[in-house]
Amino acid sequence: MTTETVDLGPVPAQWTRRHLLGLEELSAEEITVILDKAEVFRKALEDGVRRIPLLRGKTCANLFFENSTRTRSSFSLAARRLGADTLDFSPSGSSLSKGETFIDTAKNIEAMGVDLVVIRHRTPGSPRLLAANLDCGVFIPADDGIRHPTQGLLDIMTIRQRRGSVKGLTVAMVGDIAHSRTARSNIWGLKKLGAHVIVCGPSTLVSPRWAEIGVEYSYSLDDIIPRVDVLNLLRIQFERQYSRPFPSVREYAHLYAMNRDRLKRAKGDILILAPGPINRGVEITPDVADGKQSAILDQVSNGVAVRMAVLWLIASRCGK
Amino acid sequence: MTTETVDLGPVPAQWTRRHLLGLEELSAEEITVILDKAEVFRKALEDGVRRIPLLRGKTCANLFFENSTRTRSSFSLAARRLGADTLDFSPSGSSLSKGETFIDTAKNIEAMGVDLVVIRHRTPGSPRLLAANLDCGVFIPADDGIRHPTQGLLDIMTIRQRRGSVKGLTVAMVGDIAHSRTARSNIWGLKKLGAHVIVCGPSTLVSPRWAEIGVEYSYSLDDIIPRVDVLNLLRIQFERQYSRPFPSVREYAHLYAMNRDRLKRAKGDILILAPGPINRGVEITPDVADGKQSAILDQVSNGVAVRMAVLWLIASRCGK
Amino acid sequence: MTTETVDLGPVPAQWTRRHLLGLEELSAEEITVILDKAEVFRKALEDGVRRIPLLRGKTCANLFFENSTRTRSSFSLAARRLGADTLDFSPSGSSLSKGETFIDTAKNIEAMGVDLVVIRHRTPGSPRLLAANLDCGVFIPADDGIRHPTQGLLDIMTIRQRRGSVKGLTVAMVGDIAHSRTARSNIWGLKKLGAHVIVCGPSTLVSPRWAEIGVEYSYSLDDIIPRVDVLNLLRIQFERQYSRPFPSVREYAHLYAMNRDRLKRAKGDILILAPGPINRGVEITPDVADGKQSAILDQVSNGVAVRMAVLWLIASRCGK
Repeated sequence: MTTETVDLGPVPAQWTRRHLLGLEELSAEEITVILDKAEVFRKALEDGVRRIPLLRGKTCANLFFENSTRTRSSFSLAARRLGADTLDFSPSGSSLSKGETFIDTAKNIEAMGVDLVVIRHRTPGSPRLLAANLDCGVFIPADDGIRHPTQGLLDIMTIRQRRGSVKGLTVAMVGDIAHSRTARSNIWGLKKLGAHVIVCGPSTLVSPRWAEIGVEYSYSLDDIIPRVDVLNLLRIQFERQYSRPFPSVREYAHLYAMNRDRLKRAKGDILILAPGPINRGVEITPDVADGKQSAILDQVSNGVAVRMAVLWLIASRCGK
Repeated sequence: MTTETVDLGPVPAQWTRRHLLGLEELSAEEITVILDKAEVFRKALEDGVRRIPLLRGKTCANLFFENSTRTRSSFSLAARRLGADTLDFSPSGSSLSKGETFIDTAKNIEAMGVDLVVIRHRTPGSPRLLAANLDCGVFIPADDGIRHPTQGLLDIMTIRQRRGSVKGLTVAMVGDIAHSRTARSNIWGLKKLGAHVIVCGPSTLVSPRWAEIGVEYSYSLDDIIPRVDVLNLLRIQFERQYSRPFPSVREYAHLYAMNRDRLKRAKGDILILAPGPINRGVEITPDVADGKQSAILDQVSNGVAVRMAVLWLIASRCGK
Repeated sequence: MTTETVDLGPVPAQWTRRHLLGLEELSAEEITVILDKAEVFRKALEDGVRRIPLLRGKTCANLFFENSTRTRSSFSLAARRLGADTLDFSPSGSSLSKGETFIDTAKNIEAMGVDLVVIRHRTPGSPRLLAANLDCGVFIPADDGIRHPTQGLLDIMTIRQRRGSVKGLTVAMVGDIAHSRTARSNIWGLKKLGAHVIVCGPSTLVSPRWAEIGVEYSYSLDDIIPRVDVLNLLRIQFERQYSRPFPSVREYAHLYAMNRDRLKRAKGDILILAPGPINRGVEITPDVADGKQSAILDQVSNGVAVRMAVLWLIASRCGK
């Protein structure tokens, strides 16, 4: 009952990539392929199938230059549920402090016989650099400081599950747009699938330049709340900010927290997302976080499924 | 020879729990169920059987808010010998420092598709809080600051193995009773199975209030040693003490170390236990630690077996 | 295609050891047994065979008192490709700071049912101490401060692969001979297999006493470069030095870096090795590191194969 083959069908011809570097370079069709396959995996997991050994014999390395327990765990579970072996390789300063270059570290891991590399590195572009330098190993970025494609995919998957389609929906990303990797990945994906996107937050964290790529911006959650279908509440990432972009957490919560009052003014079927970890009382109040509009834990479950889909698709195009 | 099914029989009807929160709430019958099954696993391990895939397809997460290499390793081995997948999730400040609540962290892990959660958290009651909040994931505390049920179980298992029964034995817990999680778990279990328990140590570490629940207390190991059947030597946990509860380690060792002289005054068949790590020369001298009365390494081997039994029993009552 | 049995033949009668404590105690025949079997594993890995379950049911513990992401990963992959279960046990001060002895820690791990222990500990002799104290568990040192036998073996394997034989070759170890564990292991192995060995570096890092055991020494890379067949470029281990053994990194690189100019003065088929992590621009320039003489990544791939061979050979002589 737990170890079964699942009817995924063949890898669709539209999928040709052996790297996933960001949602901005994927077509709507490619995103749809990922989401469709992720749905099959999610369904199988829900039916109690825990091992779908499509990647048996493959080794998937987690190469995390910045720690991320949550994303790493989700990728590890995804890889192991596909029957792959996993290797956690956290170059905790060790090799790097010994003077080794980033690419040498990755090539070393590849030379050990690794098939898929999931990387987290804060320097934008580092995944692309690796993808260009690794001969056969595959590269799937968890994020690189400005992108977090699997988070974007799992958010969009959750919206599609609840609403059937993303097309025509108004989706607001609220909060720390300036420091959020999630925001960027969501925006690219959502726009390709036909959603109208609003970014909303304090003027110190939301740039008017978003309008240049067709994204609406707003400094007032109260203004936009009545016409929003999906609200994605970003965490205030204090650890990534060099200066305080607003007077106090209290003031931020007053203006931007999703709470009972704002929920009353929203559409009845508003869907509320938040990429964890959430700060209860800051961007969301506990009653809303635990309420029926919230899909927060669904996002987590979809995260494993979407990573299984991505790993499977990518591995299928690897020459090894 | 290494991967076999073992004749455990069905899960006994007396076992109905899907959490293990402490020995104080278990009946003597429940403790006996665990120990009986643990014996079967221990026997199988000794016969060279290394994989008994009763939990194939299950995922067991180690959620350790406080590090504990030894307990974590023992649980991991136990889970993997049962064929389960393991996930080490050490929220090293990361998520928590980002403001996430304890329960949100656990619910996130559950949402990734985890079936069993082994938690170590220093706040008493934290396991109970989780047990009440997780819908389907099962929860087995490694300890919570005042309890350490699997250590209690493995100690009692070792006594039963060597003596056939615990009933009627005089068991002395010696040392740092005040800071020991092991002491509390042992005491509840031993009393339920009919042992007479003595707690012994410096007056700063042994409260007269133990008498209120039927536990004898003593400040002198020399006084009690002649009538003791089992001696459980607790480590002085310097790392958990805010002030020095005795003048010097030398004085402590002089009064409470189990050494050759005290061994001569003890019963000929006295059984000596110590939950690792031991401090040679403090609570126990090397000749006694390595002598034939000592069952210290047996405790470690029994630890894996008892954890296999607990994981199997708990998982059998999980609705997934 | 990925899980196959590989034709290794039986364990050769010459192999009788259940510990690997250093290359100095191995005979040329024993080294050759390891290298021959490693070749079979390397070939299988290259053919896409990823799981050769010769150690199914065995548990291999990584007991690293000093961190080493790279060596640990290589051993873990080797063990898992042989079907063994792996356990990372990093006593990060925890047990040791609690006063437990080194041997007690190891005996505890053995008592959990571990079959093979890979240890890294900086005290020379610590592996030998363990080997003498563990009854049944097997012990394979990753290194002990002065030895690093599997690094020596993988270097020699790489030489043999490229040159057919080690006998008669002139092999120069260049750089931080004084602090290198790799140098010592290489030297013993190379001499047994009939190579002529030169150690070369600043006089502060190269002792004339090497001559006593038949090793040539030199302070000038330029002097020796024309007659060298294999160059093994050691990293300057700043983290292991208490005082600066040369005026500047720039001066070191000027005198000892392998660069294009020195390559022109070397034999046309010179083979260049470097145990990672490499410092580009210090002991080797990027063009040489990435050039066709370099076998740096081959060394990494051979590392997994040589560790598979050693684990398999050692396990075959374990009584369990």
